[in-house]
Amino acid sequence: MTQPAWKDSAKDVIKDLRELASLTSDADGAHRVAWTPTWDKAQDWFKKKMKLEGAEISVDSANNVWAKIQGEINEAILIGSHLDCVPNGGWLDGALGVVAGMGGIKRYGKNGKKPKKTLYVVSWADEEGARFGRSCIGSSAVSGALDINEAAKLKDNNGIAFTDALKRYNLNIEAFPNARKEFMDKHIKSYLELHIEQAPVLESQGKSAACVYGITGCERQYITFKGQPAHSGAPISMRRDAFLAAAQASLAFREIGLKHNAYCTVGKVKVFPDIVTIFPGECMISLDQRSIDANILEKIYEEARIACMKAAADNKVDVVFEPVWSIPPTIFDTHLTELCREAVKEETGEATSIFSGPLHDAAEMAKILPSIMMFTMSASGLSHCKEENTPDKDLETAIAAFLRLTEKTINE
Amino acid sequence: MTQPAWKDSAKDVIKDLRELASLTSDADGAHRVAWTPTWDKAQDWFKKKMKLEGAEISVDSANNVWAKIQGEINEAILIGSHLDCVPNGGWLDGALGVVAGMGGIKRYGKNGKKPKKTLYVVSWADEEGARFGRSCIGSSAVSGALDINEAAKLKDNNGIAFTDALKRYNLNIEAFPNARKEFMDKHIKSYLELHIEQAPVLESQGKSAACVYGITGCERQYITFKGQPAHSGAPISMRRDAFLAAAQASLAFREIGLKHNAYCTVGKVKVFPDIVTIFPGECMISLDQRSIDANILEKIYEEARIACMKAAADNKVDVVFEPVWSIPPTIFDTHLTELCREAVKEETGEATSIFSGPLHDAAEMAKILPSIMMFTMSASGLSHCKEENTPDKDLETAIAAFLRLTEKTINE
Repeated sequence: MTQPAWKDSAKDVIKDLRELASLTSDADGAHRVAWTPTWDKAQDWFKKKMKLEGAEISVDSANNVWAKIQGEINEAILIGSHLDCVPNGGWLDGALGVVAGMGGIKRYGKNGKKPKKTLYVVSWADEEGARFGRSCIGSSAVSGALDINEAAKLKDNNGIAFTDALKRYNLNIEAFPNARKEFMDKHIKSYLELHIEQAPVLESQGKSAACVYGITGCERQYITFKGQPAHSGAPISMRRDAFLAAAQASLAFREIGLKHNAYCTVGKVKVFPDIVTIFPGECMISLDQRSIDANILEKIYEEARIACMKAAADNKVDVVFEPVWSIPPTIFDTHLTELCREAVKEETGEATSIFSGPLHDAAEMAKILPSIMMFTMSASGLSHCKEENTPDKDLETAIAAFLRLTEKTINE
Repeated sequence: MTQPAWKDSAKDVIKDLRELASLTSDADGAHRVAWTPTWDKAQDWFKKKMKLEGAEISVDSANNVWAKIQGEINEAILIGSHLDCVPNGGWLDGALGVVAGMGGIKRYGKNGKKPKKTLYVVSWADEEGARFGRSCIGSSAVSGALDINEAAKLKDNNGIAFTDALKRYNLNIEAFPNARKEFMDKHIKSYLELHIEQAPVLESQGKSAACVYGITGCERQYITFKGQPAHSGAPISMRRDAFLAAAQASLAFREIGLKHNAYCTVGKVKVFPDIVTIFPGECMISLDQRSIDANILEKIYEEARIACMKAAADNKVDVVFEPVWSIPPTIFDTHLTELCREAVKEETGEATSIFSGPLHDAAEMAKILPSIMMFTMSASGLSHCKEENTPDKDLETAIAAFLRLTEKTINE
């Protein structure tokens, strides 16, 4: 049986993406937040579509949904990403990778040819952590990185415990580590993920697709400046203004990031008492720092601390650091990187290669097996919002390149 | 009958202040928020104490409570301040002025000598605006500055309308303007107010008390910077980060304030979406600017706008200004300023004179009659918090000076 042209498969993937969007989005964006009925609807859609292609469906102990096409040999490759999204999210973040995997299955399913290696596609549970605050739940259960004692403490904004939300799925947090063993039984040797870039780099370079050779490491902390609040009629020279210390530090973080070609982001800002006529006695900011280079990550982390201490001293306030989370950089498998660059070059003429600022399930997979990612461009660099988009032309190119990569990996 | 020594009267005032504090405060501070039962308790305490001194009590159409000692002539002087405070406030802000007025009445009441001019003491309703957000309700009803259509729209944080809260007091917002006419009938020719400084200037100069020759004018606005939020993995050089624009502007405001010896305060800060992994696409700050000089106030207002536009341009974001409120500087009556400086000099040896950064009911009174204020020092410049304090020694000095000023004004 002749397989369709790469671009025709890619067009079919885009059609499926729009079908999913029509089922799970409205004028306010996509609503596939993990552990909610709209996410369940998306997972059910995935199962039903894959069954129609002759795939074998299973759900593991961490609620990851798997579709399988048996190959000539048991050795398998895995395509994955996530169907969940942030509240009022976009149609592509996560969904693109799963639906592109579905496109792969369609090329080798009951209407296609039998693949050499066995092909799995997984819809990872809860990559975003939008409801319970812990990202990559499903993939980290499989990688072994999920701490179930920590996970058991998670609560959503309404005070509902993660463990209670699991009851509707007949899941038990204690059993989540079994997902690792279930994974081992699948003989998976390679992991591939297609995702939108979520930044404006490819767009600014006029590129549709790129091989992603790594994911930045991240140091995340809360920093609280503590001064003394007083009336807005108090002389400026006598103030211990915590917000101005935070403002000074935040501007310094940007310079540190620019100097080292790294990322420094102040995302959360809270002042206390937050009253028009009182200057802040306390200001808490979040600092998220990323680099693809572990040495630079350490350097920008140290320099940010020094900048905070200088800002605190200059403003006669104190500063307290609270580490939140950190992950080292991920550098993907060299061989898969080469295959991915080849696939991108075949489709676009250039072996474009970048690294990812955002984290992905692939960072979890890279801990346990050879993994690789491919990006497509994000219009205006936007994601996590209803405006998130990639023009069809660029999507087609990237999906076609990804399907080429899939075939290369299957046939090796 | 011999009047007590100034310092003995002052000690009695401090005793009354502590009695009021014990009735209306606990370990979390004072709870005399206007239009709440604890404020009512304070007002009732004031009425009862003044009745015992032979004063005639009345409540006007805006819930200001008046105590009157008839003098030899109908021409009257008025001592005022407020018994309401912010949530978890201090024992002195507002209460000091009313209770010092009570000390004045005690010197001329049934156990004292009959004053030449008639003496009124008023407890103004709702100076702080802590519950409904509008300051100086009672005194502005009397000055004629209160817009009752605006006041009728006020709601507290629980959505309770100001007009509904008034029902418990048998008050009607429509009748508030009558307070002006009721005031006119009292033949009041001078207004005196004693207050804590709420800033650390007097403490830093080692002064207990000072004549206050004016109150700064104020320009208050909300400033919103609007960029484009995106993922913390997006390159810094491509960002349109609204928070960094606000940080840059806020640091510039401080320089503007210092340059002109004026006040610039960023008190409120809100970022959107306020998420660790997304840099802010929007940041709203409040800017409160003050100066005793109307020309300088205009200048710092203009310079702040220019600084905002520069910060917006530098960060590739937009900026929107929303004026909230403004009041021109108040310069108090020259003759009363002289009397007040004399009284301070008699008690402290020096005719210390400063202006006020914070606003007071006296700014409303100065619109309609000769007015003056006196300050006592604030320990560490603190106010609007339970730590608010003035050592007894300084309080005694200031209250004694204020009672001297009262007598000078009554006897003219």
